[in-house]
Amino acid sequence: MSGSSSAADPAIAAVGEHQLIERLRARAGAPPDWVVLGIGDDAAVLRPERGTLDVLSTDSLVEHVHFRLDLSATRDVGHKALAVNLSDLAAMGATPRAALLSLALPDTLRLSQFDGLVDGFSELAAAVRMPLVGGNLTRSPGPIVIDVTVVGSVRPRRLLTRSGGRPGDELYVTGTLGAAAAGLGILAGGVERGALDGPAQACVRRYERPDARLRCGHIVGKTRSATACMDVSDGLADAVAQLARASRTGAVVEASEVPVDAGAAAWAAASGGDALALSLSGGEDYELLFAVAPRQRRKFLAAIKRAGALPVTRVGKLTTDPKCWLETGGERTALPPGFGHFLGGQTRV
Amino acid sequence: MSGSSSAADPAIAAVGEHQLIERLRARAGAPPDWVVLGIGDDAAVLRPERGTLDVLSTDSLVEHVHFRLDLSATRDVGHKALAVNLSDLAAMGATPRAALLSLALPDTLRLSQFDGLVDGFSELAAAVRMPLVGGNLTRSPGPIVIDVTVVGSVRPRRLLTRSGGRPGDELYVTGTLGAAAAGLGILAGGVERGALDGPAQACVRRYERPDARLRCGHIVGKTRSATACMDVSDGLADAVAQLARASRTGAVVEASEVPVDAGAAAWAAASGGDALALSLSGGEDYELLFAVAPRQRRKFLAAIKRAGALPVTRVGKLTTDPKCWLETGGERTALPPGFGHFLGGQTRV
Repeated sequence: MSGSSSAADPAIAAVGEHQLIERLRARAGAPPDWVVLGIGDDAAVLRPERGTLDVLSTDSLVEHVHFRLDLSATRDVGHKALAVNLSDLAAMGATPRAALLSLALPDTLRLSQFDGLVDGFSELAAAVRMPLVGGNLTRSPGPIVIDVTVVGSVRPRRLLTRSGGRPGDELYVTGTLGAAAAGLGILAGGVERGALDGPAQACVRRYERPDARLRCGHIVGKTRSATACMDVSDGLADAVAQLARASRTGAVVEASEVPVDAGAAAWAAASGGDALALSLSGGEDYELLFAVAPRQRRKFLAAIKRAGALPVTRVGKLTTDPKCWLETGGERTALPPGFGHFLGGQTRV
Repeated sequence: MSGSSSAADPAIAAVGEHQLIERLRARAGAPPDWVVLGIGDDAAVLRPERGTLDVLSTDSLVEHVHFRLDLSATRDVGHKALAVNLSDLAAMGATPRAALLSLALPDTLRLSQFDGLVDGFSELAAAVRMPLVGGNLTRSPGPIVIDVTVVGSVRPRRLLTRSGGRPGDELYVTGTLGAAAAGLGILAGGVERGALDGPAQACVRRYERPDARLRCGHIVGKTRSATACMDVSDGLADAVAQLARASRTGAVVEASEVPVDAGAAAWAAASGGDALALSLSGGEDYELLFAVAPRQRRKFLAAIKRAGALPVTRVGKLTTDPKCWLETGGERTALPPGFGHFLGGQTRV
């Protein structure tokens, strides 16, 4: 799992906790002034931003469940461990403030792998201006477990939730879907990375380095142009079902409108898979799903345009009928279940 | 590890995530009004308390490293997972506000064990009025990993830190030491619980159900009668060394003054162990160590008295000499290292 150690790249057990913490601290950077106490005390202390709410989320990545070190570098894993948490903040319309990193690591992990993990995490944290303010380091007798807790802030009127949708609201999803699941499939297929074409490489990147839609969530929240939002971590079908349930509505998704990623479609075609199924039930795309009242449509689309180059696609709508349907050429079938049910992935509590 | 499943007590993999989450949610209780969003959205949302700072800490318990299910019930493990985090809040003088619970669980864990874990956690959370506002559930291909993040609040002037100590300050520790390490030794010795005498049972209880010194930390913080504080999670020697380092001082601990727990002393005598070593380097007592300026001594002792029946003992002092010493009958030796270095336990970042 963790390669062979050498004098130049020892196992972390030989390095000792103090040096590991120093390496973490060195990468945490100088905290902003509202971090009253960062790394190094019994707890971190933050001065809340006036007039905002605290937004808190925690998500973990477990080796052999969410990543494999024979497929991905620890630097990518560290990046992803933070990115999946940032996606939760994006879905609330929140701005990142601070992160806590809790690592359970096998003794045999090599120092270069530890450094990679922390670098991947820290580089993304720096990019979104989110100081690492604390955490925990412990031994694992089994897999690497990376638990990240993020704190964000949002003004009360800008908060996005899952539960504000109403029948008749249109459902929009950012970006394209199925790419991350295809990326995992491509990696698991064992093809050399150098031999992958551009679209396949893009899928792998979507799997390893998901891009939390922070700006998009923030601007939509600010313009109050959506009634509900959640992130698409376990496939579009799961996200639609959960948003509808929280909003006490049903939903219809139009199969022909689902923005299947071109790379995912190519991989599915080549491997005999179903690109629509990947998009509906494949996990880890980390796009955002919005419910938008029809009279807010123009305001919403203008907000999305301001957020950058990310496209959105209308994929369906919320309904009074409490069931969730997939409509294909006028025929309705039950929306399939999502990825990530207990045996497969992780579940937000 | 997790016993055999049956129809009445199935493995959690057979129960499914939705029912597990419902069981968690049912135990989370009704949140107070400042919890804008609790369990069930992409993130939890809290309204900060006016005029206070946010205090954040995360700590994990890993099976086979911090607990063994052949020795302890999951109910005790759930209790402890929260208690060790509350101890961090206590050391800051903070009041508990909310908790996040992230669980990585093997498929084979039985439902009764899951319920026990969540019950132990929830009972303590309810006792300290700390709502569970979110978390995460994922599969573990190895040990149970329980990651808890706690949020507390403290008024800026009441905040206790590790770094405020000055040379000449007296060091005080609450309660007695060595009991938790003795409790682990007793359990590992394999004696039937029913056969244990009262002091041995008390040691086991200290190991399994540590009692965070929240009231003590809160009142000392409120009276501003200590210059520094930290919790004794990895033995007194480690706590003294860390507090001294953070305060840029040295320290002397008087061996004869260390409040060795009577049960720990009895167990050490019977098993050929060293009770003083247990107290200095045994982990998991979760008492509080305070630095107190001599002129604040009466105020500090009055505050401790107000906090309840917990005794405090003066065990030494901070010094200008930057080293940390143990003084035994006028002889000085280097203070021994603490428990919990990377191979043994966990380390605060």
